[in-house]
Amino acid sequence: MTEVSVGADAPFPTVAIVGFGFIGGSLGLAVKRRWPASRVIAVDEPPVLEAAVRMRAADAAGDTLASAADASLVVLAAPVRANIAVLGQLAGFVRGTAVVTDVGSTKAETIAAAGALPSRLRFIGGHPLAGGALGGIAEARAELFEGRPWLLTPDRSTEPEALASLRRFVEGVGAEPVELGAAEHDRMVAYLSHLPQLAVTALMHVVGESVGAPGLALAGTGLRDTTRLASSPPGIWRDIAATNGQQVGEALDALIDVLKGLRAQAGRPGASFDAIFTSAARWKQMLDER
Amino acid sequence: MTEVSVGADAPFPTVAIVGFGFIGGSLGLAVKRRWPASRVIAVDEPPVLEAAVRMRAADAAGDTLASAADASLVVLAAPVRANIAVLGQLAGFVRGTAVVTDVGSTKAETIAAAGALPSRLRFIGGHPLAGGALGGIAEARAELFEGRPWLLTPDRSTEPEALASLRRFVEGVGAEPVELGAAEHDRMVAYLSHLPQLAVTALMHVVGESVGAPGLALAGTGLRDTTRLASSPPGIWRDIAATNGQQVGEALDALIDVLKGLRAQAGRPGASFDAIFTSAARWKQMLDER
Repeated sequence: MTEVSVGADAPFPTVAIVGFGFIGGSLGLAVKRRWPASRVIAVDEPPVLEAAVRMRAADAAGDTLASAADASLVVLAAPVRANIAVLGQLAGFVRGTAVVTDVGSTKAETIAAAGALPSRLRFIGGHPLAGGALGGIAEARAELFEGRPWLLTPDRSTEPEALASLRRFVEGVGAEPVELGAAEHDRMVAYLSHLPQLAVTALMHVVGESVGAPGLALAGTGLRDTTRLASSPPGIWRDIAATNGQQVGEALDALIDVLKGLRAQAGRPGASFDAIFTSAARWKQMLDER
Repeated sequence: MTEVSVGADAPFPTVAIVGFGFIGGSLGLAVKRRWPASRVIAVDEPPVLEAAVRMRAADAAGDTLASAADASLVVLAAPVRANIAVLGQLAGFVRGTAVVTDVGSTKAETIAAAGALPSRLRFIGGHPLAGGALGGIAEARAELFEGRPWLLTPDRSTEPEALASLRRFVEGVGAEPVELGAAEHDRMVAYLSHLPQLAVTALMHVVGESVGAPGLALAGTGLRDTTRLASSPPGIWRDIAATNGQQVGEALDALIDVLKGLRAQAGRPGASFDAIFTSAARWKQMLDER
């Protein structure tokens, strides 16, 4: 019996990971490395599942939630709106008591949807800050989470025992759990992640449309480095636009205001961008020192 | 006599470089490497000149334009407005016929100021696209220009012989001369260089002010890479704001418009950023393939 042989330190004997892409697959690998006797169940489309088993990132695989019936931890690792859809069906498939978490980059709507779960399914929002540009299962790696923050958004209804187990799980795969409120999480990622992505996407679009291919041939490393994120596929950003719209909107407003201020200065005699440059350089230094 | 021993292929026996920082110093090193018998004269402040001679980036040095009296090529390599000030004094110091060029990142105002030069001083605007973040003389290196475009902005008044010599000079230090009109140059760099810098500076300022030091501690490599340019010192950007204001203003307007479009979408049911993401990814691919 696989479950019996699990080491005493494994917080969850059976981990179902729903959505087995870059993050889900890396998590499967990390779990198998840390707790070889824990059972990892991958739920995704059949071609992904073949890769998952071949890579030994999962012990079992299925293309429906029925495979997650015995899970003691369910990790929702699909895009945010897909996770929300899964939350609506989970109670009909998972049979016992389980902790449920997600790895989505916005929290408010997922937590609202989790409110309808029966009390035996204990939801705690999660968000590993790892990965950069996303790949698929083929790029998954066990060390993805090492030394990276893993945000958790418990609230007053969270059972301390469930939170303690989830923290041990997160630490076990190498990450550092950081607790914060869901609203604060969504505001923070709007600035740290969503705004930079949208700014770079807008910038690359404007530059390309304005100078065309002959102009881009003259570009230097500054533009290349700045626009690395512009290769991101639109898929996950549809969800972010839809599920973190208010925070993203406020962040965009703040950026537009500052750009308008620079625009008003441009070309004036005695024009000075010094205050913004000095502030940016100071924050940049702080960013790079961490 | 040094001049007599110059190889027949050297386009200019005596090159005065006014402003001997990262670009000027690298040019001095590149000239000495390519044409050891050409005489390089550095004009700058005394501490810079000591470094210039110690690094063998210059044969002679002086802290006034009097040192440039015998120059056959004068390269203005100070910030744009300092170059414009030098142009006003040059005729009083350079005794013979000379080609005069600059390495500034905006052209229109410099070219206007050069219109007052006597006809024996033949001005052709220049702009080596090399360097990334600027350092001082200490970071100068002879290979800085290798394989990089060096923009030249001749016009109808340019003498073909002067242009041919300057092209040979640019090729000799390893760069690829690219000719374009001054107005087109200024528009191009507004998008390729100035707009990315201002966008990143504004972004880093907004993100830092919004999340503070605790938030920045959670940032990933995406934000770090995106904001590399945010360390740029404000100095040279004062000149750019003042001398390329109209083009920079129009570029900022274009970016603000796209960001407003994204802002209007954020949070709407069915919101989609797809068109902008698809366009950005296409231009980014073209940028990276070059």
